[in-house]
Amino acid sequence: MGAGQLGRMLHQASISLGVELCFLAASDRDAAVQIAPNYRVGSAMEPAELEAFSDICSIVTFEHEVVDLESLAKLEAAGAVLRPSAAALGVVADKLAMRETVEAAGIPVPPWRSVESPQQTADALVGWPQAVVKLSRGGYDGRGVYFVDADASPSIPNTGAPLLIEPKLDIDVELAVIAVRAPTGDTVVYDPVATLQIDGQCRQVTAPAVVDGQVVAAARRLARRVAQVVEAVGVVAVELFLVGGELVVNELAVRPHNTGHHTIDACVTSQFENHLRAVLDLPLGETALTAPAAATVNIIAGRPAVDPRDHLTEALTVDPGARVHLYGKEPRPDRKIGHVTVCDETPTRAAQRAWQVVRALGGDIPDEEMLE
Amino acid sequence: MGAGQLGRMLHQASISLGVELCFLAASDRDAAVQIAPNYRVGSAMEPAELEAFSDICSIVTFEHEVVDLESLAKLEAAGAVLRPSAAALGVVADKLAMRETVEAAGIPVPPWRSVESPQQTADALVGWPQAVVKLSRGGYDGRGVYFVDADASPSIPNTGAPLLIEPKLDIDVELAVIAVRAPTGDTVVYDPVATLQIDGQCRQVTAPAVVDGQVVAAARRLARRVAQVVEAVGVVAVELFLVGGELVVNELAVRPHNTGHHTIDACVTSQFENHLRAVLDLPLGETALTAPAAATVNIIAGRPAVDPRDHLTEALTVDPGARVHLYGKEPRPDRKIGHVTVCDETPTRAAQRAWQVVRALGGDIPDEEMLE
Repeated sequence: MGAGQLGRMLHQASISLGVELCFLAASDRDAAVQIAPNYRVGSAMEPAELEAFSDICSIVTFEHEVVDLESLAKLEAAGAVLRPSAAALGVVADKLAMRETVEAAGIPVPPWRSVESPQQTADALVGWPQAVVKLSRGGYDGRGVYFVDADASPSIPNTGAPLLIEPKLDIDVELAVIAVRAPTGDTVVYDPVATLQIDGQCRQVTAPAVVDGQVVAAARRLARRVAQVVEAVGVVAVELFLVGGELVVNELAVRPHNTGHHTIDACVTSQFENHLRAVLDLPLGETALTAPAAATVNIIAGRPAVDPRDHLTEALTVDPGARVHLYGKEPRPDRKIGHVTVCDETPTRAAQRAWQVVRALGGDIPDEEMLE
Repeated sequence: MGAGQLGRMLHQASISLGVELCFLAASDRDAAVQIAPNYRVGSAMEPAELEAFSDICSIVTFEHEVVDLESLAKLEAAGAVLRPSAAALGVVADKLAMRETVEAAGIPVPPWRSVESPQQTADALVGWPQAVVKLSRGGYDGRGVYFVDADASPSIPNTGAPLLIEPKLDIDVELAVIAVRAPTGDTVVYDPVATLQIDGQCRQVTAPAVVDGQVVAAARRLARRVAQVVEAVGVVAVELFLVGGELVVNELAVRPHNTGHHTIDACVTSQFENHLRAVLDLPLGETALTAPAAATVNIIAGRPAVDPRDHLTEALTVDPGARVHLYGKEPRPDRKIGHVTVCDETPTRAAQRAWQVVRALGGDIPDEEMLE
């Protein structure tokens, strides 16, 4: 379900395995639909459309969480094979449910409070001069995330969804770990990566994360544990903060994830192939990096938005070793329309090269200090 | 033009670049058509169908040579953009034309003779107790190739095509080199590979070829020269014999080629992406191996033919690091229905692992002595 860039990259992986995919797409111009023969246009929030779609699939998997969970649970009870399950999707589709579930399992999370509506936010900020307010449902890619300062209070829309509030933490580094869990419980874990987020949007991923070996081991352990706790099948992306030397679980997703795109060009088996293998109950593939280091930089359309397809010549001239992935999406400001991966001897060098290619493609370039 | 497994793998590569492909397919079950949205069913031997197809494409490229060359030349004269050109296709579509063109350019080739029909073969064998007879046109994948022994004369069909005759050579090793040439003449060359042919069919490719550094350099030079001589655009696959320490050019193709499939999983840029880049006049990508060594083994359906899709669990259990590529083709005896690539420290070790996976997938396994 879903036919965006994650569906597009799942389709690429499915071709090698000889697996037939069908997409439930929002429109017939979706990123995956442009390059794949089988799809239906429909809404994953409409019970009848969910049912019609699940009827034509032997197994249903997901590339987003904006789905009618109640209908999915009914379809599952009636025999539809959902991987991950409606229950697992339910945990991650609601940031409060996720936080509660993870914390209840004894996994460390950041300090947090919740309120029912934006009007109650002020009271919940007591003692937290700087805070992050997140819609519990419906947010993605930096949308639905609000940064509250002592001297500036953003207008937070009342969507009806409760809000998760966290103090602004003094984060050493943001990490992410991709785990992939099979229906049997077998789980493989990729090397932790360092991520660079700007305004809640992932801009850069470097692999491997340059942190202490003990932190790496702890991050891998936490990801494995989270996958088990949410009973995921397929990719589980676990985003972590390293705060004062301790790891806390910030966000998670049960689908292929932006923090794992480097695995296409820099690991033995990509997160997309391993997601399909898990969903199909096939043995999982090796996760090792095939290069000393790699970096993925997202192509975010700037202002004015430029189409990277018009700048391929410049970009491929800049770096003949770069791997460019375009999503076929209309370039609109702030929209993620592709990514570039570069392998090199160090994460820093790989990232520098990837940013040069993104610049040549006309992608948005943050201020220098953001990248340090 | 064409929608077999080469088209299928071209489609995978096109997705990352955001390039839209349309296939001229022989049927709506062709390997590429199963996984791509845009195609027309038609024959590349029918002038009207060629014209209708080239009308809807801004650039036409090819994954086979069974095309009506006369019509293509006319379309090109009328403004169609063919890459490679009809002239380049003409050289490789006819083994005699190819042999003459390459030899005339001063490039070493094996000893050869030609006859107009099978009846004249006997006279042309004088002094060659063992020989290989090849149809000049229409052969592929071991079809159209006949091995003539002193004591056994195969029945060679009279297809109307003249025949190319060569003595059986005492070959040290069979090599292949993938070169990719841009419309500007810029050319990149991959590391030479060693190939293992059984009954004229490529079974195993190992990279890099374990031969003297001078042979490697000579092979790369020859491939570059051949690409220039035939004025190729896109991939040029050059198959070479090493005979008594000297290289001769045996066969060539101006399209992605079986001897370059390892480039998908073991090189920075695959032959498929570089073919598209050349055809689109984009800068060519780095060709370096990303692993010390790699091997690709073809999955050839045995007797009885087994569907590898039914044995993915066994195969992926045998080797979690193997890269399996299935073509979606009905398994019929002797048919090439997929390939497996493994990267490892040495070509020998990589090949051993790849054969184990092919065995688990139910592919044909030649006698041990053939593999030595």
